[in-house]
Amino acid sequence: MNIDGAPWRTIWRDETSGSVEIIDQTRLPHRFETRSLTSLDDAAEAIAVMRVRGAPLIGATAAYGLALALRDDPSDAAVARARERLVATRPTASNLAWALNRMAPRVLARPASARAAEAFALAAALCDEDVAINEAIGEHGLALIRRLASERAGDGPFRILTHCNAGWLATVDWGTALAPIYKAFDAGLDVHVWVDETRPRNQGAALTAWELAAHGVPFEVITDNAGGHLMQHGQVDLVITGTDRTVRSGDVCNKVGTYLKALAAQDNGVPFYVALPGPTIDWDLDDGVRQVPIEERDPREVTHILGEDEDGVLREVRLVPKGTAARNIAFDVTPARLVTGLITERGICAAGEDGLLGLYPGAAFDRGAA
Amino acid sequence: MNIDGAPWRTIWRDETSGSVEIIDQTRLPHRFETRSLTSLDDAAEAIAVMRVRGAPLIGATAAYGLALALRDDPSDAAVARARERLVATRPTASNLAWALNRMAPRVLARPASARAAEAFALAAALCDEDVAINEAIGEHGLALIRRLASERAGDGPFRILTHCNAGWLATVDWGTALAPIYKAFDAGLDVHVWVDETRPRNQGAALTAWELAAHGVPFEVITDNAGGHLMQHGQVDLVITGTDRTVRSGDVCNKVGTYLKALAAQDNGVPFYVALPGPTIDWDLDDGVRQVPIEERDPREVTHILGEDEDGVLREVRLVPKGTAARNIAFDVTPARLVTGLITERGICAAGEDGLLGLYPGAAFDRGAA
Repeated sequence: MNIDGAPWRTIWRDETSGSVEIIDQTRLPHRFETRSLTSLDDAAEAIAVMRVRGAPLIGATAAYGLALALRDDPSDAAVARARERLVATRPTASNLAWALNRMAPRVLARPASARAAEAFALAAALCDEDVAINEAIGEHGLALIRRLASERAGDGPFRILTHCNAGWLATVDWGTALAPIYKAFDAGLDVHVWVDETRPRNQGAALTAWELAAHGVPFEVITDNAGGHLMQHGQVDLVITGTDRTVRSGDVCNKVGTYLKALAAQDNGVPFYVALPGPTIDWDLDDGVRQVPIEERDPREVTHILGEDEDGVLREVRLVPKGTAARNIAFDVTPARLVTGLITERGICAAGEDGLLGLYPGAAFDRGAA
Repeated sequence: MNIDGAPWRTIWRDETSGSVEIIDQTRLPHRFETRSLTSLDDAAEAIAVMRVRGAPLIGATAAYGLALALRDDPSDAAVARARERLVATRPTASNLAWALNRMAPRVLARPASARAAEAFALAAALCDEDVAINEAIGEHGLALIRRLASERAGDGPFRILTHCNAGWLATVDWGTALAPIYKAFDAGLDVHVWVDETRPRNQGAALTAWELAAHGVPFEVITDNAGGHLMQHGQVDLVITGTDRTVRSGDVCNKVGTYLKALAAQDNGVPFYVALPGPTIDWDLDDGVRQVPIEERDPREVTHILGEDEDGVLREVRLVPKGTAARNIAFDVTPARLVTGLITERGICAAGEDGLLGLYPGAAFDRGAA
């Protein structure tokens, strides 16, 4: 998408240096900085500390991480080590394993001297595919917004609540949950976005706010606590979130707090949709609440926060009494019964195995090729 | 309650100077400072900027605010002006109006020269009454915790989730939601508290964490987003919150986000109780969601935050892109259907008119004397 009128992706290869370039999202919204990844270590660190985040983008970064590893050592053992290392960086999103599972056999089929080049080519193709998937999600979501906007009784802007950042910063471009919003805005629809700040990492207040502002989409930041009240008072027409992993039953794992918004949406009759690229489906799991591994991160992300002071200096401050214990659970699972529908690159379906298999026939038996 | 072993209340009169002293809660948890209120202006400002907060404590502060006003001008007009000024500081809690409605006729019945002294005496009595009410809530809540702890299947600590601060800092002493927890801890029960940080003002992470630590009660701070996940995984045995206003139907208005926790509690079969001093009941209203006025505060409370840097300096930092629009809705209403029971100073009842009238017979016709 555009920043100051110029098109950007979140990850790309610098053809001159051969390094992989990313936007360092730990510095947003206060600083816009890019960063070079030149090794497997760099890629793993970028994923672990969330310089890149969002299920599709960490899949793409892992793909490039494998390529960088093979540039240094193209052996079978190096492929295995790189896969193990990258999958361990973040446990919840399934895109990491998906990207690596898809690449590995194709890379291993090549002679050692050709493996790095093959991996870079596959990573680049995966990025292009992600952009196409997300744009297709945007088109299907746009049709949904048009329909819901025409059916509702009220007037004024069509108000969409979103949690976390599932925008272009979470993908290679376009985003998942925000792709329909960009499409709607670009098509001239009167939309307004309620942006959940999304504690503790504030991906909403920091990243979603930043990218919506850069594109000119009207929005207001709210606390994660406020969405229920807004829904009780008819101020939300639609909820769209992304997902880090959707299981075949339609249970959706996403940033912690998504489940609470889904409960409020159900209690108030607000449509709750999840935008979902095919590669985030985990066909092996049936019960999201019991089976999806939920990442627990450093409590310091809860007890401390980075912001910009009035002099423009970035400062980390402590929010709690010194020595306070905290827990930092990063994701939760929204049961399929609370999800109105899934917006995929192949269309919209009910949140359930029948719905998913209708769009991805045979996919449960062909994981690598989804 | 105790700070470093010494007993404190949140508000008291300095008999030497005649001023009213408070703990300045905007400085906690980083600084413990008291502040003198010497005029109506001081009292109104302290309530409006939340140097004092919590329904019972703002009622007590309003009572002293009226007394301070009468010290300067004991006329009938001054009483009316002070009431109007104080009620306007915070629109949601009903304790403000309750305290002033109760005091005004008694003050006006006295000759002008005796009015200030009468008001100070009534304010002091109101504070003592608040302490007694809260301790009684603690005893009834303790019995509830004992029963639930004996009935549950699991072992380990009995885990209680609370939202916002309804501890002694929200009252004159003891607290409402935390009074049962202090009683349980003091009685030797093995309790653990999940403390919702409670954005945007972080009353949980700042105030509840501070007072639980000062008393030695085990707890961990979590983001407001995390409670649903914990309940899905059987890690919450009980939710207790306070309330700013409960209407006769049993709908409960409390800090924004309470409704989301109540939905999650219902979805997971977790008991959801609200601790409730009689003076927070608004017998005039029936429909909490439609009728309780919900305060909307300065968006800067969402976009900026105060914390302590590594050098111990208090700094306010901005969390969002410069110029970002935000909304700051301070309260929400939890419908009675989601509330397992109300813990009052007179016992525990179902959340509804029958339950409330069972404990407060005739109260609906005698508001001032509740």
